[in-house]
Amino acid sequence: MRIAIDAMGGDHAPKLIVQGALEAAQQWPDTELLLVGDTAAIEPLIGGNKPSNLTIHHADEVILPDDEPVRAVRRKKGASMVVAGQLVRDGQADAMLSAGNTGALMTTGLLVVGRLDGIERPALAPMLPTMDDIGVLALDLGANMDAKPEHLLQYAIMGSIYRNKVHGLEKPRVGLLNVGTEAKKGNELTKAAYDLLEQAPIHFIGNVEARDLLNRSCDVLICDGFAGNVMLKAMEGTAGTLFTFLKQEFGDSLMTKLAAAIMMPRLRKLKGKMDYKEHGSAPLLGLTGLVMKCHGSSDAVAVKNAVRQARTAVAARLTESIAAEISGK
Amino acid sequence: MRIAIDAMGGDHAPKLIVQGALEAAQQWPDTELLLVGDTAAIEPLIGGNKPSNLTIHHADEVILPDDEPVRAVRRKKGASMVVAGQLVRDGQADAMLSAGNTGALMTTGLLVVGRLDGIERPALAPMLPTMDDIGVLALDLGANMDAKPEHLLQYAIMGSIYRNKVHGLEKPRVGLLNVGTEAKKGNELTKAAYDLLEQAPIHFIGNVEARDLLNRSCDVLICDGFAGNVMLKAMEGTAGTLFTFLKQEFGDSLMTKLAAAIMMPRLRKLKGKMDYKEHGSAPLLGLTGLVMKCHGSSDAVAVKNAVRQARTAVAARLTESIAAEISGK
Repeated sequence: MRIAIDAMGGDHAPKLIVQGALEAAQQWPDTELLLVGDTAAIEPLIGGNKPSNLTIHHADEVILPDDEPVRAVRRKKGASMVVAGQLVRDGQADAMLSAGNTGALMTTGLLVVGRLDGIERPALAPMLPTMDDIGVLALDLGANMDAKPEHLLQYAIMGSIYRNKVHGLEKPRVGLLNVGTEAKKGNELTKAAYDLLEQAPIHFIGNVEARDLLNRSCDVLICDGFAGNVMLKAMEGTAGTLFTFLKQEFGDSLMTKLAAAIMMPRLRKLKGKMDYKEHGSAPLLGLTGLVMKCHGSSDAVAVKNAVRQARTAVAARLTESIAAEISGK
Repeated sequence: MRIAIDAMGGDHAPKLIVQGALEAAQQWPDTELLLVGDTAAIEPLIGGNKPSNLTIHHADEVILPDDEPVRAVRRKKGASMVVAGQLVRDGQADAMLSAGNTGALMTTGLLVVGRLDGIERPALAPMLPTMDDIGVLALDLGANMDAKPEHLLQYAIMGSIYRNKVHGLEKPRVGLLNVGTEAKKGNELTKAAYDLLEQAPIHFIGNVEARDLLNRSCDVLICDGFAGNVMLKAMEGTAGTLFTFLKQEFGDSLMTKLAAAIMMPRLRKLKGKMDYKEHGSAPLLGLTGLVMKCHGSSDAVAVKNAVRQARTAVAARLTESIAAEISGK
């Protein structure tokens, strides 16, 4: 199995990306890792101990965080992210991962790697945090702002397969993000999608509300990219604001500082739970090969974890399973 | 000025509704209050001290919390809520308020009171909590799940006029709920609405994200009912889950109980801040008369506060101002 890694994308690229790739190469000798990027920058980071299953695939250019996604992918054909996508498209890699510009990565998926036959919209599917630390796979979370009912149906099928193949859930519970749990609730999109999801070869449990998500009311959350993003930012904003308030109150007097000393380890644990950035990389589902989006702040551990996820997905033939299920419709 | 009060709607009806009406009648002798509901139930609650500016307007029926809204309003023509709406429609009252079934109240607004000429969709506009306790008026929050760009434009105009007339804000800052602050962000709806809002006679400050709302990043938040509801429930759910977690952790040991004793008053303050139910009644804007939705759990103080808001709005000629601005387009 071969996995291409964009060595140049992310806040800590190339240093920590290369370090993560080195650790992954050592841990999984059966997996070939292709580090895509500037050879001159990567080689010194590897040093004299290059594992035999790690190779550098030179790429001249880099897509920057502020680059306009579509233009960057079209014009910078030699960018590390685009070249990694080409490796997947050409069958030279089974999967690619990048911590670079999210929009550009979605564009690379769409324009370079390409959609699976029958998939109308690939979807970005991060794990949302839950209090029990298990998480909910949510899609689409930002690849497409607008969705049709048929797109939500495909998201549900892809998300179910992912959680089954990669996380081992036998019968993932699929919920539709809505404003109430009753079947007739919602807008035109969710009402039409509800009917489609009821007929689909998935374990559909009906509408779910954003307020129950942290208690893991489903395993796969289906939403359009706009509503999903609004939800995620509302959750982040509320948690962030409450932590800021608590910090202020804890620092207020000698007594509150005492309380802070007692409670701080527990609050840190809570903060960790709520931080969706800590919940690993997100697959971009519906493409002819696996594309994984790592968070921009990914360090070596995050890169290694993303390789682990990609390995599991490739070994479980995720892409082939999605293709078979979708073309069967 | 005359204000009709649905005496039979809400968790604490008729007792605390009547009590709130009595207190309001005493406080504002210039305002005539019409208590609409079952005379036999209301009279004993008033007792022998009926203020001269309070009258009972008998209504036989009651709309129940679980009634299907449209059917209930169509069939129960003698229900207290519907009769209060008729009083507004017929010019016998300038405003009405109810703590009853929200869906039925919106239906009463639409079918009994009626839309203002030129208004396509009336909007429900509650105040969302902010950390500084001032709040953000958000609309639409549930009257219509789907919206067109022109509806969002009308929401913005109505919300601006409300905050100006009722809350005295000279130049309310209007923000469009979106997934990023840049002008080109969002779905088809928000992109089209953005262009309309830029041309409107309001102080449009652009897109706002759900994560900044608690810090009062705008005075009027514009959203479709679906996205707004998802946002609100995500905020409520996150706050509720965090409070539950804190409660558990604080009860964990002798030391954490000590910390709890120190911090509890501050946490209660925070919980109060986050509870949108405590932020008063919500106008249903765009009708030929003012309709106010009080929370189902309203007590006498909440009813009195709703009368206060209604008085201010009627005195400031809110409905006439909205009509003039909309018909001017």
